[in-house]
Amino acid sequence: MHDFKYKNNNLYCEGLRVRDLAVRFGTPLHIYSYHTLTDHFIKLSKAFSAIDPLICYSVKANSNLAILKALVEKGAGLDIVSGGELFRALKAGCPAGKIVYASVGKTEREISSAISKGILFFNVESLPELKCIDRIARGLGKVTRVAIRINPDVEAKTHKFITTGKITNKFGIDLESAYRILLLRGKFRNVKICGLHIHIGSQITESAPFVAAVSKVSGFVRKLEAKGIKLEYLNIGGGLGIVYDRESPQTAQVYAHEITPLLKNTGLKIIMEPGRFIVGNAGILVTKVLYIKNTPKKKFIIVDGGMNDLIRPALYGAYHNILPLRKTFRCEKADVVGPICESGDFLAKERRIASAGEGEYLAVMSSGAYGFSMSSNYNSRLRAAEVMVSGKKARLIRKRETYADLIRNEIKG
Amino acid sequence: MHDFKYKNNNLYCEGLRVRDLAVRFGTPLHIYSYHTLTDHFIKLSKAFSAIDPLICYSVKANSNLAILKALVEKGAGLDIVSGGELFRALKAGCPAGKIVYASVGKTEREISSAISKGILFFNVESLPELKCIDRIARGLGKVTRVAIRINPDVEAKTHKFITTGKITNKFGIDLESAYRILLLRGKFRNVKICGLHIHIGSQITESAPFVAAVSKVSGFVRKLEAKGIKLEYLNIGGGLGIVYDRESPQTAQVYAHEITPLLKNTGLKIIMEPGRFIVGNAGILVTKVLYIKNTPKKKFIIVDGGMNDLIRPALYGAYHNILPLRKTFRCEKADVVGPICESGDFLAKERRIASAGEGEYLAVMSSGAYGFSMSSNYNSRLRAAEVMVSGKKARLIRKRETYADLIRNEIKG
Repeated sequence: MHDFKYKNNNLYCEGLRVRDLAVRFGTPLHIYSYHTLTDHFIKLSKAFSAIDPLICYSVKANSNLAILKALVEKGAGLDIVSGGELFRALKAGCPAGKIVYASVGKTEREISSAISKGILFFNVESLPELKCIDRIARGLGKVTRVAIRINPDVEAKTHKFITTGKITNKFGIDLESAYRILLLRGKFRNVKICGLHIHIGSQITESAPFVAAVSKVSGFVRKLEAKGIKLEYLNIGGGLGIVYDRESPQTAQVYAHEITPLLKNTGLKIIMEPGRFIVGNAGILVTKVLYIKNTPKKKFIIVDGGMNDLIRPALYGAYHNILPLRKTFRCEKADVVGPICESGDFLAKERRIASAGEGEYLAVMSSGAYGFSMSSNYNSRLRAAEVMVSGKKARLIRKRETYADLIRNEIKG
Repeated sequence: MHDFKYKNNNLYCEGLRVRDLAVRFGTPLHIYSYHTLTDHFIKLSKAFSAIDPLICYSVKANSNLAILKALVEKGAGLDIVSGGELFRALKAGCPAGKIVYASVGKTEREISSAISKGILFFNVESLPELKCIDRIARGLGKVTRVAIRINPDVEAKTHKFITTGKITNKFGIDLESAYRILLLRGKFRNVKICGLHIHIGSQITESAPFVAAVSKVSGFVRKLEAKGIKLEYLNIGGGLGIVYDRESPQTAQVYAHEITPLLKNTGLKIIMEPGRFIVGNAGILVTKVLYIKNTPKKKFIIVDGGMNDLIRPALYGAYHNILPLRKTFRCEKADVVGPICESGDFLAKERRIASAGEGEYLAVMSSGAYGFSMSSNYNSRLRAAEVMVSGKKARLIRKRETYADLIRNEIKG
């Protein structure tokens, strides 16, 4: 599943002892395993080899250039959601023709730039957006391609913040409205509707919601074909869940087994947008124990990583396993908390956890996705460094911020 | 209360039309009123003039150098929680002798730097931290001052993430343990315990919890005096609530009236740490309407400001009033949502709100505190610009980020 394993009671990332990396690069520190990262991509490719999809890694999960480059070199396309991600995708060497662009709030500048660069297509989220893209393309004297994002009204059974395929969510277009748009497609002279897109949410651990969504959309494809509307692409989005705690998510094989027949039947070129599935378990956040604080009611393990480094526990009530870098069998119940001045700053609550003394290190597991990418400078804390490990080599892929970075754009006056 | 008011149906910040600022500086845009900011500070000073407290503005609420400088020039000290905030405080021109430093997770480097700069005192959160400060001061050949942060076990009646004075929170030291520490104070040769600190939470709208906490701690001060332990300072923290929706928080006068007698009785120099009270209503976030999206179940107003710009609605379920820049009496029920690809990205849900068309602007009110300071680059979005208005003058106090800023510290390899 991933390449963070104990050897002689020490946690290793591939061929390197994590403790040595913590000492060398300082903490808090994000460490990624190159092998885990690329292996997840390859596993997914192989599971779906029968239909040879274009797998567009979802940049928002972790947008570090080195992560993007590693995947692009393996043949991945990229799924972007902003002009900033377009900039990153191109910097990382991704061919524009392998970039798909979703977001309910694309600005004119972002649309214009994506058209000019020649991305594969936009995932269009509303009729006003479609009109806007058409108008901008006309201004640029181009015809650009779009997929209509369908909101299939399917319950993904995940956290409410990352459910995106219910009709009460802001995403996509309901089937009926999408049908009307497709019938009127000739009105949009500078837009070619070349496909459909669905994305029902994130961290989904069962196949059933995917099957339900794909079934709905493939029925829709047939309905369109009956009307003489031929499409090229079906973008089935991402959302594959990973193991954080005791989940047993569908594997790539099971997932592929369940939906490949449905996808094949459409006759369309399939696009997938996995993010967390690729990078989630490929990263850990290493943090140092600053103080052990015993209070009358609780034990607190105070560490140097905070909610600014990993907001998932506070924002989603997310569970992350926490492991000591040196294996121990002594356990105790404690809250693992960061240095930030609010009670929402915690990594674990009332958790039975391996004992770790002051100055020792802990690894917050499975923090590769939505870890650094959601990090902030809250409490004027410096954003952490990021390191990529491949075999016995470690490489800094993002320098730790400095105090100068904090105020770089400020003008005191 | 604040200087954002309609004149001729246009929203103004002091003497300038907000719409003109949005056009000039772009959106999303944080706009602060200098007069509101400094006026809140002055009001608090006046309300407590009988005891002449040192008012240390809480930097974490909004740490822009121009905000800090404006307050420091009016005589404010600063309440910091990290080395980054110490750096900012000194850059803003705050005398070190007016800086107090709290945080459950101060690192050795941060402690060392604060001692070297000669801050007024540390608010110490645990016995291990006290030992650590003592050891570091000894290494530096200095004696440094500390206040013991008491956890008074008082319910602040606010969001659970910003309640900090319950015994199950990570903050402060229970009274009994604090008493033992004070009896043994001679053991810490390089630390002088000069005061007590309490801070029971944030956005507290009633006086009762403050009165309860101050009563507890002043009883404790008497107990110490009876033992011959003389202190100099009582730091009563911050936490004063402001109006976001229909709250009617205590005014500075009422608050002062309730607790001044208790504070006077202690005979100690009083320190206060207001943050939100000073800057909360002094700032707005201006955002542009990108698309109006009608779906079968809901209307969505999609704007260019997202949860990366203001995370309070998603993280705390916080309410922010949303006003059109051009007053209108047409209202409708809608969700106001940002461009970020998750359902947690909203500014208002099912809110009756003034109608605003595509291309128009909305002001998210009372976003001066915990707005920019918690902002991130999630979805590779650029952090917004910040502008300070004073009378008829507007000044950029933080430049909008560029794409180059996003990858400044990254090494693609």
